[in-house]
Amino acid sequence: MKRAIVLLSGGMDSAVCLAKTIEMGYAISALHVNYGQRTEKKELISFDKLCNQYGIESRLIVDISYLAAIGGSSLTDRRIEVTKANLANKEIPNSYVPFRNANILAIATSWAEVIKAETIVIGAVDEDSSGYPDTRKDFFIAFENTIRTGTKHEFDIKILTPIIDLQKSEIAIEGMRMGVPFELTWSCYQSDDLACGDCDSCGLRLRGFAKAGFPDPIEYKTRPEYS
Amino acid sequence: MKRAIVLLSGGMDSAVCLAKTIEMGYAISALHVNYGQRTEKKELISFDKLCNQYGIESRLIVDISYLAAIGGSSLTDRRIEVTKANLANKEIPNSYVPFRNANILAIATSWAEVIKAETIVIGAVDEDSSGYPDTRKDFFIAFENTIRTGTKHEFDIKILTPIIDLQKSEIAIEGMRMGVPFELTWSCYQSDDLACGDCDSCGLRLRGFAKAGFPDPIEYKTRPEYS
Repeated sequence: MKRAIVLLSGGMDSAVCLAKTIEMGYAISALHVNYGQRTEKKELISFDKLCNQYGIESRLIVDISYLAAIGGSSLTDRRIEVTKANLANKEIPNSYVPFRNANILAIATSWAEVIKAETIVIGAVDEDSSGYPDTRKDFFIAFENTIRTGTKHEFDIKILTPIIDLQKSEIAIEGMRMGVPFELTWSCYQSDDLACGDCDSCGLRLRGFAKAGFPDPIEYKTRPEYS
Repeated sequence: MKRAIVLLSGGMDSAVCLAKTIEMGYAISALHVNYGQRTEKKELISFDKLCNQYGIESRLIVDISYLAAIGGSSLTDRRIEVTKANLANKEIPNSYVPFRNANILAIATSWAEVIKAETIVIGAVDEDSSGYPDTRKDFFIAFENTIRTGTKHEFDIKILTPIIDLQKSEIAIEGMRMGVPFELTWSCYQSDDLACGDCDSCGLRLRGFAKAGFPDPIEYKTRPEYS
């Protein structure tokens, strides 16, 4: 049975990727990364619940809080306010954590070499997203090439981005089809009790569910109307 | 003044790279990574001494001991014996830490984006080395491309490998020319008191100094003859 490492933050995108990877027939190893983000605890709880729900035993939780020490992002630096969702804005928001996905993919690749996983699955979304540079297709192609040149080559390690071209609404629909327990997921960037409803991530999620025509099963402090 | 991040393990290669980067006129930020390797403490002491010697104030020390948790290398897993130097052997030795340099370069890139350093300097050696896959030119070219696709693009970040084509003896000669304090450096993979003289890294270093015609100023437990 082929093994895939699924990067599982605990958000809706990674949860849908997990379900899709299981559907593809892979044995699953789940990787979760704490990087000093504001909602670290909530995300870790979601990771654990999702792993329990899907019966995943092979788990790795990694601390890279050096990203918070390096700073430069409102997700890790409490002195920078998380900007409110402005989904029409095409600028990179201050929640961008510099080169975060490369750090996470490097960890996944190291683990893949050791446990002989041939696929790394990441729930990046290109179009309908916050516009971070490290969620673009070009970036993943370049990273896969880096893996090819920088590992032992006993086997190929590929990066799979199953939802990169989907709209958030399509991700919600895919998840509903597969019975993804969205009530266990956490997407908010900001709060660690109820999801704020205000940040970019809450905005994208709420708009996605609204467009999909499903209710988002988690609770929000404020729930702006999207259509 | 242009700024470079120098990856400074504390070994002879990174020390020579540091001196070369200073010679090139860069302002220096020094990055040191602890990854649960056997000689972590010795390497950190060398890092601090080298930074003090060269008056480097901008320092970042990062813990990625998850590499030890992931394992797969004799450098981080005490159950795997570090093999003795066999410099004629062309196989990848068990001291290879899977995809380590990608993990370190990802950290350096995150830091570079925040402090606006446009160059990352790594003392990788391709030919006269242990043959790790993540010290090859192709790997660094691929990683630089990953940086280009996955960062914010306010400025270009380049990877510089100033000694990649040098023989170890030439690195020693370059260091002597620039007055690198080799007595402060640490290369041994295995011991944390005196350098063992037996491991791959000690072997490469001793052979390099022997070929260069300089005495290696550090002490060894055993000092095999190389010529």
